[in-house]
Amino acid sequence: MSEMDTRCRVSKVIAVLSGGVGAARLLAALSESLDPNEITAIVNVGDDLVMHGLTICPDLDTIMYTLAGRNNHELGWGLAGESWRVMEELNALGGAAWFRLGDRDLATHLYRSQRLSEGATKTQVTAELCERLGVKVRLLPVTNDVLATVFDTDLGRLSFQEYFVRHHHDVAVTAIDVVGADQATATPDVRAALVEASRIVIAPSNPLISIDPLLRVPGVREVLEQRRDVVVGVSPIIDGRALKGPADRLLAELGHEVSCLGVVDFYKGLVGTWIIDEADADRADEVRGRGVNVTVTTTIMAERENAQRLCAAVLA
Amino acid sequence: MSEMDTRCRVSKVIAVLSGGVGAARLLAALSESLDPNEITAIVNVGDDLVMHGLTICPDLDTIMYTLAGRNNHELGWGLAGESWRVMEELNALGGAAWFRLGDRDLATHLYRSQRLSEGATKTQVTAELCERLGVKVRLLPVTNDVLATVFDTDLGRLSFQEYFVRHHHDVAVTAIDVVGADQATATPDVRAALVEASRIVIAPSNPLISIDPLLRVPGVREVLEQRRDVVVGVSPIIDGRALKGPADRLLAELGHEVSCLGVVDFYKGLVGTWIIDEADADRADEVRGRGVNVTVTTTIMAERENAQRLCAAVLA
Repeated sequence: MSEMDTRCRVSKVIAVLSGGVGAARLLAALSESLDPNEITAIVNVGDDLVMHGLTICPDLDTIMYTLAGRNNHELGWGLAGESWRVMEELNALGGAAWFRLGDRDLATHLYRSQRLSEGATKTQVTAELCERLGVKVRLLPVTNDVLATVFDTDLGRLSFQEYFVRHHHDVAVTAIDVVGADQATATPDVRAALVEASRIVIAPSNPLISIDPLLRVPGVREVLEQRRDVVVGVSPIIDGRALKGPADRLLAELGHEVSCLGVVDFYKGLVGTWIIDEADADRADEVRGRGVNVTVTTTIMAERENAQRLCAAVLA
Repeated sequence: MSEMDTRCRVSKVIAVLSGGVGAARLLAALSESLDPNEITAIVNVGDDLVMHGLTICPDLDTIMYTLAGRNNHELGWGLAGESWRVMEELNALGGAAWFRLGDRDLATHLYRSQRLSEGATKTQVTAELCERLGVKVRLLPVTNDVLATVFDTDLGRLSFQEYFVRHHHDVAVTAIDVVGADQATATPDVRAALVEASRIVIAPSNPLISIDPLLRVPGVREVLEQRRDVVVGVSPIIDGRALKGPADRLLAELGHEVSCLGVVDFYKGLVGTWIIDEADADRADEVRGRGVNVTVTTTIMAERENAQRLCAAVLA
């Protein structure tokens, strides 16, 4: 009976601060351990963009497609079994085809853009899409205001997708800003989820460009500071490297140590428990020295068994 | 030499007030008789719409695709060899899929919407698309301001595409308005084309919903009144019926005679020469009674030979 109680208490209130791919994997694994209805993902919208008139939300879509079991494993983004007729034609027309949008993926953006033009919020549209796709984890954009993560680089100021996709994050970054964050408001659902959660998880997403835009929305950081004891973070850096994406390079370029310790320092005052990979076991004492509990486990979720071990650590 | 002179003088300055399908056919036929570089189509934008965040210009696209030899003959709209993956998925998502957009057609709307968001005008975007598609006739949207043809019907006020596509123009209309026309400005290119044309052609498009929105843009009607002698119109009504679309039904519903005479009366004061079909030869004297020259010929362009006879009449 006590096990049942624990399960219900934890599962009803888990909130996961989420970027894209890494968060999607963690959420998929957590959905196997918990009732997915009782998991809330609070999702970054700093890399959302309007392109070709369409509102595109890459992190929301990555999580949605992954949890629907429809994500494209080969590409690492978009839908499985995708086709590219629109892009082929757009390319022939001389249009901006560097940000590739598959035919079926485009339907998501058309749906969202139409509903937004009708006055629906991004929160509402996300709920509608999740219902259609059978996604039971609750996905909440952190805000319905417009955020824009931008990069000062050797090539000048770049939008998120210019940096990430067009230049393959292969350009030196001197500063990152999240335009609009100061004036943004976390949605009521997000505020309630953070306050009511008995566990707040920071997914192993890029701390600088996935999690930080969430923390910059007024109110989010403050709740984590106040509720630090229930905050569990998973290090996205293993043995000095990011599994995917430019987190390691960006940390170095912006003066952070490229390690599980560097990331927990970036999250200073926000994390009660820091989960690091077995490869970083020798850094555990340093993390504890920051006044943070440490769990050492497998954090690479490539295999289902490992993902479940990580989930057990997150929920412990 | 005089023949050459005539050809150059006429061909350099022909301006065609254009709706969609009927105008596209006439323009395609005229392109065989004249250097297409020297034909300007002044195109209705009253049925343009923003849907799914995309700016869609049905009449411009119908003409563009037809002149590029890429129009879909079976459907009567859109591109040949089209596929429908985006629509299939949008339908599965519960999106508004009644306004069907083919995958390749969508690329046009993505291109246009992106360029408009970058500050390009509809005139510029149309020129870019035409260049890419090899269309040499100059296509000019009548205005870069937003027009919206709307219908008061038994089902309430409907947008153009709600009336035309969603309800298959199968609903009684009591009034038509072109919202925004009063405040719109004809583009400088359009004004110049109308003033410089040695011949202004009114295509056999729907007078009430294709041509009238053009005439309602301040300046257009006035030029036709002043230059009535060079205005040649082709009746879209043959033997009391429209070849295609709801022109006949709308004329009746709005109190006009459903005949070549009813249409020339609708264009009162604007037309110097009215081209009517052989089937309506018995109405020629009545048209002349309106102070309008009459040419009787074949106006159905289904066969190339007939289309060329009509062109000869237009250019005579």
